[in-house]
Amino acid sequence: MTDTTTSTPLLQPKVKFVKTQTEVPLTLPVTAYDENGQALEKFVACERPLTVYLNWQPIVTLMTLGAKPESLTLGYLKNQGFISDINQLESVIVDWDVNSAAVITKESIDGLNDKLAEKTVTSGCGQGTVYGSFLQGLDEINLAQVTLKQSVIYSLLKNINAYNDTYKNAGAVHGCGICQADNILAFVEDVGRHNAVDTLAGDMWMEQQGGEDKIFYTTGRLTSEMIIKVAKMGIPVLLSRSGVTQMGLELAQQLGITLIARAKGRHFLVYNGVENIDFDAKK
Amino acid sequence: MTDTTTSTPLLQPKVKFVKTQTEVPLTLPVTAYDENGQALEKFVACERPLTVYLNWQPIVTLMTLGAKPESLTLGYLKNQGFISDINQLESVIVDWDVNSAAVITKESIDGLNDKLAEKTVTSGCGQGTVYGSFLQGLDEINLAQVTLKQSVIYSLLKNINAYNDTYKNAGAVHGCGICQADNILAFVEDVGRHNAVDTLAGDMWMEQQGGEDKIFYTTGRLTSEMIIKVAKMGIPVLLSRSGVTQMGLELAQQLGITLIARAKGRHFLVYNGVENIDFDAKK
Repeated sequence: MTDTTTSTPLLQPKVKFVKTQTEVPLTLPVTAYDENGQALEKFVACERPLTVYLNWQPIVTLMTLGAKPESLTLGYLKNQGFISDINQLESVIVDWDVNSAAVITKESIDGLNDKLAEKTVTSGCGQGTVYGSFLQGLDEINLAQVTLKQSVIYSLLKNINAYNDTYKNAGAVHGCGICQADNILAFVEDVGRHNAVDTLAGDMWMEQQGGEDKIFYTTGRLTSEMIIKVAKMGIPVLLSRSGVTQMGLELAQQLGITLIARAKGRHFLVYNGVENIDFDAKK
Repeated sequence: MTDTTTSTPLLQPKVKFVKTQTEVPLTLPVTAYDENGQALEKFVACERPLTVYLNWQPIVTLMTLGAKPESLTLGYLKNQGFISDINQLESVIVDWDVNSAAVITKESIDGLNDKLAEKTVTSGCGQGTVYGSFLQGLDEINLAQVTLKQSVIYSLLKNINAYNDTYKNAGAVHGCGICQADNILAFVEDVGRHNAVDTLAGDMWMEQQGGEDKIFYTTGRLTSEMIIKVAKMGIPVLLSRSGVTQMGLELAQQLGITLIARAKGRHFLVYNGVENIDFDAKK
């Protein structure tokens, strides 16, 4: 596992697919002037359009940092319900020269036109999820009940500090990580926190990894879509540096997710699932 | 101008339209447990679905805090290019009992079905803007070139601290403001920063206010869509507490927007338009 890159591979993907990709830089140097009028060299995070095509039909244009476009593409398509079975995949090809990601499945997808015809999308802090299917399938989700030690939370937060390179250099990005206890299995940064979640969902899907023994960390706020995506990945613990909304909390209660917000250093707030926390490191 | 509410009216709307709205609370009390296992009463920001209907056709479901749903609805429709002329509006009715906002225009809208049929949307940190029209019309934008005093920036930042009630109580929201020098004309908070921008765009549109003598403040990051929306409001100065992406910067350079990021207290970074800053308050 390389720890100097912005994103770490979860494990080697079991699904073989063709991918061509020109690596793109994640940050660029620019000149900015501070309050003394002094010129400083700063780095800004990149933001690139990536148009996703599924069997040659354009689906969405994702504005992304560009770290892991294949994982992002697959994770997006899975989370939006376009593809459910990893074995359906024929190939994923990303070409930054034309800002495109083309996904081909072995057989045509039933109901693709109908799905594309659904026009009502969620938005606001979300990503254009079709609202009709936004809340679908939640009743079928059955998350593991796990105990989490306070000492593991502290150790995880300390370890995760090694991973947010783009944020440290340039800011303006969110980061998400999949952890097993305090072990950071994968970490991704992106302009939008939803992209980062989708990228990790893509990774886990390719690897056919289950979520029941994982913890999901994010720097972003715990809003409704975040909770739903993490639940669909089968992960029962969600840890954020930021805050939580009322709908995020209600969904966590409904789905049985242990929800920990405002987590930094030795501080955190448990909004749901406090009975699952083993306070083994109180002062 | 009331300064105890989360959102302040810009000026009285010149367009009369029917609106029925049940005021909804913006925050709710919940119990959370800190790192000592101690129960604390905390407030969480609300997050509600609001489905926007235009002439009875569903357009989008916005996940919103709920402060100013009529302004948000109109600002969204304007920024997405569904309606361009305020005089086209017949009525705007919001009903929280069915989480809906219904907008009726005096005449039917040409090309509405085509627009709804356009399926490729931007996303990532954006809002589902149709990418094809995302960058359209930028060449026609001609922003004023204005000088901005450093002392005014400092005064504005100090004044804006009085407005972010929901953030202070509950966190998890972004805030945006329209200012005239250090005078805060309007301030709105929402779960997503794009909603807050759209809400202010709706306010300005209803009021038929021009943007050339305004400054736009946001707590959110300066990404491509933010720059484009503010430019379409005719505002030439953009000030943020957060950072900027490479595409946001490139668009600001192209459009001639003075871009100031990381603005807090006495610190800021000018990424574009430093020649427009009068450094009258250097230490």
